[in-house]
Amino acid sequence: MRALARAITLVERRDPEARRLQEELRDRAHDSYVVGFTGAPGTGKSTLVDAVVAFLRKQDRSVAVIATDPNSPFTGGAILGDRIRMQRHALDAKVFIRSMGARGHLGGLSLATREAIRLLAAFGFDPVILETVGVGQSELEVATIANTTVVVLTPNLGDGVQMIKAGILEIADVFVVNKADLEGHERVATELRAMMSMVPKSSREEAVWKPPIVATSAAKQQGIDKLWDAIQAHRKHLEESGRGEALAEQRLRDEVAEVAAGMARDRAQQALSQDGDLAERLARDGTPYEVAEEILKGYPGT
Amino acid sequence: MRALARAITLVERRDPEARRLQEELRDRAHDSYVVGFTGAPGTGKSTLVDAVVAFLRKQDRSVAVIATDPNSPFTGGAILGDRIRMQRHALDAKVFIRSMGARGHLGGLSLATREAIRLLAAFGFDPVILETVGVGQSELEVATIANTTVVVLTPNLGDGVQMIKAGILEIADVFVVNKADLEGHERVATELRAMMSMVPKSSREEAVWKPPIVATSAAKQQGIDKLWDAIQAHRKHLEESGRGEALAEQRLRDEVAEVAAGMARDRAQQALSQDGDLAERLARDGTPYEVAEEILKGYPGT
Repeated sequence: MRALARAITLVERRDPEARRLQEELRDRAHDSYVVGFTGAPGTGKSTLVDAVVAFLRKQDRSVAVIATDPNSPFTGGAILGDRIRMQRHALDAKVFIRSMGARGHLGGLSLATREAIRLLAAFGFDPVILETVGVGQSELEVATIANTTVVVLTPNLGDGVQMIKAGILEIADVFVVNKADLEGHERVATELRAMMSMVPKSSREEAVWKPPIVATSAAKQQGIDKLWDAIQAHRKHLEESGRGEALAEQRLRDEVAEVAAGMARDRAQQALSQDGDLAERLARDGTPYEVAEEILKGYPGT
Repeated sequence: MRALARAITLVERRDPEARRLQEELRDRAHDSYVVGFTGAPGTGKSTLVDAVVAFLRKQDRSVAVIATDPNSPFTGGAILGDRIRMQRHALDAKVFIRSMGARGHLGGLSLATREAIRLLAAFGFDPVILETVGVGQSELEVATIANTTVVVLTPNLGDGVQMIKAGILEIADVFVVNKADLEGHERVATELRAMMSMVPKSSREEAVWKPPIVATSAAKQQGIDKLWDAIQAHRKHLEESGRGEALAEQRLRDEVAEVAAGMARDRAQQALSQDGDLAERLARDGTPYEVAEEILKGYPGT
């Protein structure tokens, strides 16, 4: 566990050592199924994830949770208070829980998350649960990483389903209406169905997969089995339709492209900080395009 | 005006033509002062920006507004409803208003915004106002682009200043408490001062620049002159301390690094889609790092 935690820290810091680790683990690599949980703050996401972990532990599965916090790139600190809820799994060696912040630049979180998932898979954790904390880009990014994306709603959302952030509907493979014991629970499901019928079919392939709506009461551990069934049904759909394979390949390509972007960004920052003249030249007679191109042509440079 | 609008569309689409345009405009390029406005939805940001535009027009200045909408990268559509408010400037050739969405990938919005600002400057618009719409990463990104960042608050914020998103305090050069006619206005200012005193000095250089708190009532066009004075005072501080120059250079470096990252990302996507084997090889015996490096070494490739 400690080795794994350290390895993830290396990944997060973008330590060169992390890269060597990935190369070494290559042969041990297999894919873990990744389930993303996203939704507005206050929907009980963490409690739900906690309930899913408990459910999976009863089946004796090793499960990992990564809570991603896009947070402020300026403060560095995390507002992840409620990891404390997870303490009931603290002594369970088959549960690994980790918070990851967006310490680096844009895109860095998703890259570090992908690598952390690969490490977790190598250590036998399957499934890996990806939970977004707070608001921000990561709510949508989770769908580019997860195999199945669960969008969590509650009856006590401010303006009901209208409050859902743009784009969230499109990324949902499974909807959860949590806190199903609260009043208004049926209304949320009805509104959701109405909204889904308005989303263009092409963008969500509704003809092929219609996201089911599952009612849960995470605090009472109710509906978790049905939720897991829905996730498994989506997984089966991905496998049988061949869509899962296509998505996996796209994810791999995106990752390579993101790694390449990160390398180029680092190289450019390095070149510009080493070569004061370069910055000056840019200001005088180059566009950012020209200078960037020049740097890339000389890759890897000094 | 139409040429400018078209040019910005090219930039937004990342059209190769946009690059040529930047090169041609190089000689005409001068810097416009960029003022960013950010804050939670419902703070009356748009009305405030509208009032600032009216104020500047009385001084016969050409002013441009870019409303950035991080929005969903999935839908492509924009939720920019309230641009309609701006209609009173619709026939004024010295006011240019434009919404820009995050149509591309991460980082794309900030890059497109920087280029759009350069175009607006070449066309004589100064200052350029950058307004963030909705929530998301762009709230913080605006500070990396703007010379002066204005954070807008209101007395009727849910839990008062506590509601402020992490990182927002650090990026503020000027605070506005809008809707100053509402009750609780003084409380917000007091809470703000208390919170500012808790922020480590190093991160905000409080010793050098203490963000003033300005009360406005945008709907009544009140306090706008004081707001503009505060922005001018910050500008003067940037000039006299030399900090403005240092920030400008850092912005330029960041832009080159971002352009380099975008080029590398595009190149990688292109290489991977052209060469089916590359994707296969990656799956078989390469890490994303190795394949990305290989692609960069061959830059610009075919």
